[in-house]
Amino acid sequence: MAVHNVTVEKTIRSLLDSKKYQTLKDILVTMEPADIAAVFEELDEVRNPLLFRLLPKETAAETFAELDPEWQELLIRGFSDTELREVVNELYVDDAADLVEEMPANVVKRILAQADPQMRKEINEILRYPENSAGSIMTTEYVSLRPSMTVREAITRIRTTGVDKETIYTCYVTEGRKLLGTVSVKDLLLAADDETLVSQIMDEHVISVTTLTDQEEVAQMLSKYNFLALPVVDTDARMVGIITFDDAMDVLVEETTEDIEKMAGMLPSEKTYLHSSAWDVFRHRIPWLALLMISATFTGMIITGFESALAAQVVLTAFIPMLMDTGGNSGSQASVTVIRALSLGELEFSDLPRVVWKEVQTAVLCGVALAMLCFAKIMLIDRMLLGNSDITTLTAFVVCFTMAVTVLIAKLVGCTLPMAAKKVGFDPAVMASPFITTIVDALSLLVYFGIASALLFG
Amino acid sequence: MAVHNVTVEKTIRSLLDSKKYQTLKDILVTMEPADIAAVFEELDEVRNPLLFRLLPKETAAETFAELDPEWQELLIRGFSDTELREVVNELYVDDAADLVEEMPANVVKRILAQADPQMRKEINEILRYPENSAGSIMTTEYVSLRPSMTVREAITRIRTTGVDKETIYTCYVTEGRKLLGTVSVKDLLLAADDETLVSQIMDEHVISVTTLTDQEEVAQMLSKYNFLALPVVDTDARMVGIITFDDAMDVLVEETTEDIEKMAGMLPSEKTYLHSSAWDVFRHRIPWLALLMISATFTGMIITGFESALAAQVVLTAFIPMLMDTGGNSGSQASVTVIRALSLGELEFSDLPRVVWKEVQTAVLCGVALAMLCFAKIMLIDRMLLGNSDITTLTAFVVCFTMAVTVLIAKLVGCTLPMAAKKVGFDPAVMASPFITTIVDALSLLVYFGIASALLFG
Repeated sequence: MAVHNVTVEKTIRSLLDSKKYQTLKDILVTMEPADIAAVFEELDEVRNPLLFRLLPKETAAETFAELDPEWQELLIRGFSDTELREVVNELYVDDAADLVEEMPANVVKRILAQADPQMRKEINEILRYPENSAGSIMTTEYVSLRPSMTVREAITRIRTTGVDKETIYTCYVTEGRKLLGTVSVKDLLLAADDETLVSQIMDEHVISVTTLTDQEEVAQMLSKYNFLALPVVDTDARMVGIITFDDAMDVLVEETTEDIEKMAGMLPSEKTYLHSSAWDVFRHRIPWLALLMISATFTGMIITGFESALAAQVVLTAFIPMLMDTGGNSGSQASVTVIRALSLGELEFSDLPRVVWKEVQTAVLCGVALAMLCFAKIMLIDRMLLGNSDITTLTAFVVCFTMAVTVLIAKLVGCTLPMAAKKVGFDPAVMASPFITTIVDALSLLVYFGIASALLFG
Repeated sequence: MAVHNVTVEKTIRSLLDSKKYQTLKDILVTMEPADIAAVFEELDEVRNPLLFRLLPKETAAETFAELDPEWQELLIRGFSDTELREVVNELYVDDAADLVEEMPANVVKRILAQADPQMRKEINEILRYPENSAGSIMTTEYVSLRPSMTVREAITRIRTTGVDKETIYTCYVTEGRKLLGTVSVKDLLLAADDETLVSQIMDEHVISVTTLTDQEEVAQMLSKYNFLALPVVDTDARMVGIITFDDAMDVLVEETTEDIEKMAGMLPSEKTYLHSSAWDVFRHRIPWLALLMISATFTGMIITGFESALAAQVVLTAFIPMLMDTGGNSGSQASVTVIRALSLGELEFSDLPRVVWKEVQTAVLCGVALAMLCFAKIMLIDRMLLGNSDITTLTAFVVCFTMAVTVLIAKLVGCTLPMAAKKVGFDPAVMASPFITTIVDALSLLVYFGIASALLFG
């Protein structure tokens, strides 16, 4: 059963107050690093280093890796050099590289000074790769085997070198750093004969990524193939590291959150909501709000252009919000569907004709259904129930016809813009609801006044 | 490197045409089941069973599990009883249970008739659990060990029973079906002495879920703790199954897609976009469109109520779209952020005061910034550049003041509604942009006309 943080936090706080360190230690060893980190972040700052020193070495490193950067920095500043050395060298290389990336320069200097030469070399290697690339999230700690080893020798090698590896369950068969195949511990354990050669049981059809593959693609491959880890090779097809499923899961969650933020017209944020200040939140939200507000100048211009006509037929104004919102909703349904399918790799640009055709059919169905419903609503609710006698059958027809056309335009704009964005290398997620709503607003008003001019003022 | 489906598909098609089955077989064995399934789904129906028979038994089952239900049904209808028996009994129990859930009754009858008695019993057990519960996605194929076994005995047991297990890397130590602890193959392999007892090296602090835990929560726990698998226990704390990380990844992706669909005002769909017919897409989109269109009656009523005032000051109409859109965008930023944080478990209802306070601060910052920018825009662009002389400084002030108030209302509505929905057991994702836009539209119009009445018509 998952430990309930609030209760545990209270217990730990009171044990700290009464200085019952041994009891505290006994409780902490029963907890998962992720839960310890969550409790640490809830306690006040002064107590953190104290509590941290109660953890066994390995748990301490794992807990450290789970903490938010601000807490990591606080801890490091409280560490002696010896304490820092112990934690840093116990970390997995990918976590150590993340740490170095997040910390300010003077802290990085201390970290690298305390890292073992081998660790320092590997951290620096990972840091060379561009952000969000496979190289930047991989770890260099994997088990490599030779093709000429027997199953017995392979198992012995895992037993002697496995302790510090991020995973031992998939082993990589290499020769001169060239990746020849993979063999799982399951294959090794279930092999009929201990003298079988690794080359005989290895899987030679290895799926790998390069150091420059985008991390989102890597995560999707791991999820698609249900692999524990994917090998990363350099441009000369030499093996340089692995990416494990747990890092892939984190990437999937992060990238999806980023997509969702962009779709709602926000700049993606690295911090969680509760850890962001109001100023942070403001900075991530204002650019799109301001941009979209300014673009509303167009809708304003269109209405101003038809001002005199509107003054004569004020009843038309009452339907503007409904038409705009229905257009916006129709467009965002299409765009969000397409954006999600693009980011899951279900759609490619070459599917555009199929997508457009599907959206046209859907738009006709939705448009006709909504127009009929809208006509009924206007005649029954607005005219009869609310007694608005300004509404004629012709007005209702103009509104409903506009609605059908708006839905069609909205669905078309909604499905094509994200795909076009992807094609020219922009992020499709930016082409979501707020952006499309602004375009659809302007177009739907033009259609509305166009049709009204032709039928009502003509 | 991932195989490129389009090329492979062409090759396979031409090999099929020229009946080069041996070459085809040689190609298929190099491919991952997920890729074979993707190619199968692109080929025409008649060829599927033919191609399927070329696959080795284990690959055939794995490929079968990767196919969409419609293709699975097609294949089963083409299978002889012997072929069906081979595939069904080679499946993992959780995949077999999924299959039984998806197929029509007459196909289910055939499947259960061909399943081994043990398989049939386990399928039926899994099917007893409610949809989306841990019990419904777990598998019953795990390695169990006794606490009194030595490391050597444990490894022997894994070697003899491991071949059909979904994972052998985490083993579960049980006594009388009660879960006592876990031990990993890593622990077993790295144990210093083969005669060590399992009870000495097992981890007794087991995190488990119950059969009724929601699948999304399970997925988030696996992702948080970086576990390969989580044990599932019944109400009497007896071990009944495990859920592995690959299933958790699928759940994460599915649940997020559902959230995104709901946030865009759509009913979630089980099928991928390209596999859905226009009619399917229509059915999932029309309910919210229709509901939101009808609710626009309120905005219409508000405008109608102020009709005579608007007729006197038509210039006010020109700013309605801008005010409504900015309100909608501000509200959806807040709601989407809160909905995502809720579904990642970062927020709980008890955080409501902190959330409201953060949103109020952000709203004040955004509102003031937007109001000032809007004032500048109206005076410089609308009045000077576009020469709209109807716009007075007072009009501009009314618009900008409304904007600031609207942003505040929108952020408040946007952050509280999803949290309130969660509290009363509704799905927060439904409280997203379209819904909030409709509410904010009505409120912002009321504010607009209220302020205008007080300052302009007073």
